[in-house]
Amino acid sequence: MRAVDIIIRKRDGYALTREEIAHFVTGVTEGSLPDYQASALLMAIVVRGMSSEETAWLTEAMVDSGIRVDLGDIDGVKVDKHSTGGVGDKTSLIVAPVAAACGLLVPMMSGRGLGHTGGTLDKLEAIPGFRVDLSLEQMKAALATVGCAMLGQTAQIAPADKKLYALRDVTGTVESIALISASIMSKKIAEGIDALVLDVKTGSGGFMKTEADSRRLAESLVSIGNASGVKTEAVITAMDSPLGRAVGNALEVIECIEVLKGGGPADLIAVSVELTARMLVLGRIAPDKDDAERRVRAAIQSGAALERLGRIIENQGGDRRVIDEASRFPTAAERHVVKASRTGFITRLDAEGVGRASVALGAGRDRVEDTVDPAVGLLVLRKPGDQVSAGEPLLEIHYRDGARLEAALALARAAIAIDDRPAPALPVLASEVV
Amino acid sequence: MRAVDIIIRKRDGYALTREEIAHFVTGVTEGSLPDYQASALLMAIVVRGMSSEETAWLTEAMVDSGIRVDLGDIDGVKVDKHSTGGVGDKTSLIVAPVAAACGLLVPMMSGRGLGHTGGTLDKLEAIPGFRVDLSLEQMKAALATVGCAMLGQTAQIAPADKKLYALRDVTGTVESIALISASIMSKKIAEGIDALVLDVKTGSGGFMKTEADSRRLAESLVSIGNASGVKTEAVITAMDSPLGRAVGNALEVIECIEVLKGGGPADLIAVSVELTARMLVLGRIAPDKDDAERRVRAAIQSGAALERLGRIIENQGGDRRVIDEASRFPTAAERHVVKASRTGFITRLDAEGVGRASVALGAGRDRVEDTVDPAVGLLVLRKPGDQVSAGEPLLEIHYRDGARLEAALALARAAIAIDDRPAPALPVLASEVV
Repeated sequence: MRAVDIIIRKRDGYALTREEIAHFVTGVTEGSLPDYQASALLMAIVVRGMSSEETAWLTEAMVDSGIRVDLGDIDGVKVDKHSTGGVGDKTSLIVAPVAAACGLLVPMMSGRGLGHTGGTLDKLEAIPGFRVDLSLEQMKAALATVGCAMLGQTAQIAPADKKLYALRDVTGTVESIALISASIMSKKIAEGIDALVLDVKTGSGGFMKTEADSRRLAESLVSIGNASGVKTEAVITAMDSPLGRAVGNALEVIECIEVLKGGGPADLIAVSVELTARMLVLGRIAPDKDDAERRVRAAIQSGAALERLGRIIENQGGDRRVIDEASRFPTAAERHVVKASRTGFITRLDAEGVGRASVALGAGRDRVEDTVDPAVGLLVLRKPGDQVSAGEPLLEIHYRDGARLEAALALARAAIAIDDRPAPALPVLASEVV
Repeated sequence: MRAVDIIIRKRDGYALTREEIAHFVTGVTEGSLPDYQASALLMAIVVRGMSSEETAWLTEAMVDSGIRVDLGDIDGVKVDKHSTGGVGDKTSLIVAPVAAACGLLVPMMSGRGLGHTGGTLDKLEAIPGFRVDLSLEQMKAALATVGCAMLGQTAQIAPADKKLYALRDVTGTVESIALISASIMSKKIAEGIDALVLDVKTGSGGFMKTEADSRRLAESLVSIGNASGVKTEAVITAMDSPLGRAVGNALEVIECIEVLKGGGPADLIAVSVELTARMLVLGRIAPDKDDAERRVRAAIQSGAALERLGRIIENQGGDRRVIDEASRFPTAAERHVVKASRTGFITRLDAEGVGRASVALGAGRDRVEDTVDPAVGLLVLRKPGDQVSAGEPLLEIHYRDGARLEAALALARAAIAIDDRPAPALPVLASEVV
């Protein structure tokens, strides 16, 4: 099997065989396939596409590039949640403790922020002492004791994905439903979970900008999961403006704690409850979605979910006192308030723009090797649809450095639009589920 | 300018700017653009195509990666001929001395054979002592003294092409009208010629298998040449069966000498006369094509062209006595005759199959680093359209090694078809000229 022949077949629009796909992934993993051949094939895949069968084979080959975690010796149903990434998208820190408090086991491997989107690991590390670099043995122990582990992807999980992603990032081959699907699902399938709920974001701040594309991605992800024996559902949720009010690592954890205390913004609660309830149904903790939602709300109201978050933090070396003492989080000393330039309705608070502003402050990273500042970020004081008067505070920026503030302000201001009439926004939850 | 942004633009079907194309070619030439980015862009170009404007810019950038030879201090019109490659395609060794004998200057840089197609340099090197590795100074001196230089591409000519071609060969990105056009024309434009006649082969043994594709390639090549100030014409000629009767390096040179002595096969004469006559018209040696053809035939009949070939050979270190003493060529001791399996008409003598048989004998190369045997090859005794009786000799194979003969025989036999009725063949010269 010659790599160039595989490349030519895909270039000419033919479907690849299972063996050809496995040959490609093995070559990438072992380093025997030169990068220039891998990138030519990736480009051919981006332009010509892959059938659902090819995508499933690609996922399978990527799973097989590493180990498939065996969680069979731990009693209980293992269910994970995964989001395609957004701005202010902090549901993992709510969903995981609630689901665990309701009786699921949650082995959640997450990523770091890149570009305008945040990452769960960066948020967790805003908690003083919290360690995300658990080994697989530590992950299993965490599941057995506190019902949840929140960690980074270990080197044994789908190593082909890491190599492929690094190449895709620099060769213009990120934007492919097939490649994105295989990347996401290979890591989730390798976790050894029984079920998975996906949160596919749609809108300016999401990976997919239109609902049609988001639906295609959702369908692809769900099809791969179910074909691999992982019961999978996807919810399409809005990402045209930030989810909740906080954007920035420590600020977002604080907001999650608010939700677990019974407060917090309505959109964040709605998405978190929806995702967790679906996990409970897939995991057979609840017979139907109504019952599941009642259980989720009860776990929050009773304080059981908050207590569970405390145990998760403690179990991974973090300081659980942050739950009641927000001052223990890293804090940026400086504040700047962005005010409404005119009276009217907020018609736009562009998620990507706000995300880029938070990166400018230092809360996120443009390149994988950048470090993030856990303290800085933005608080959204007024959301799209709100009526505001000229001079009214819209955003509160937490910053350390004046030059960074200026860059962030330019981006934040450009992200806001105020008009005489309110404009339609995406529904927080799309009407259909995949 | 980020390489990944250029890749993404072409991936999404946009035209690249002159600056973007120059950035790409410079990066490839200097080695500052990683191969994996170059190959991703090449694949995007193959699939999305390039406009004629982009192709012209690509050619220009490839010319500018090296030097543009200045032949201005040599009096006379410099005209070259280039073929897209075929089997038994030996016209250069006829065209060059005839054109020089008629008063043109012919600075002909050629290539080596690869795959089933032969290369002029390999044929020239079948002449004992003939050196093709002339410097640019030696080339100029040859033009000034014998009116013709036949040499390999020097390192100063379009170095980007050599790097790009090596990458295209292993990444499935050879088959692109734009990339092929830029590769051919950058080298020809850099030669410093005034005019160029292209022989675009069509059929199984050519680079382009259909006349429509050959026409598209011809139009692209002609458009680039004329836009760069090189008067360019293209003739589309048949390559469904070998041109002439000889396939193999020494055998082909012997056949060219026959033509220059007034003999030789009709198809080879027709193509050679056509190409040379067009060179004379473009080079203003002749007022029209009829007059040009008379001059070409006169140069052959008078012996002037043969005499010129002798001077070219002598000037490049070769033994000109081969012209009258064919035994001075390297010769393979063994002969094998392939006979007609039945009585009927030859309906097919597949050029690619015969070319592959000659490679199997050692006359060509599968890989750039292979060496060729100048002596081995095939003589086509009967051509498509001929009526034959069972047992009548069809091919004479000149070989050295029994195992190679067996491999060649299998290929040669598969290339022949005999039927009750003659089948239509491609016209030697297509009716239209580009």
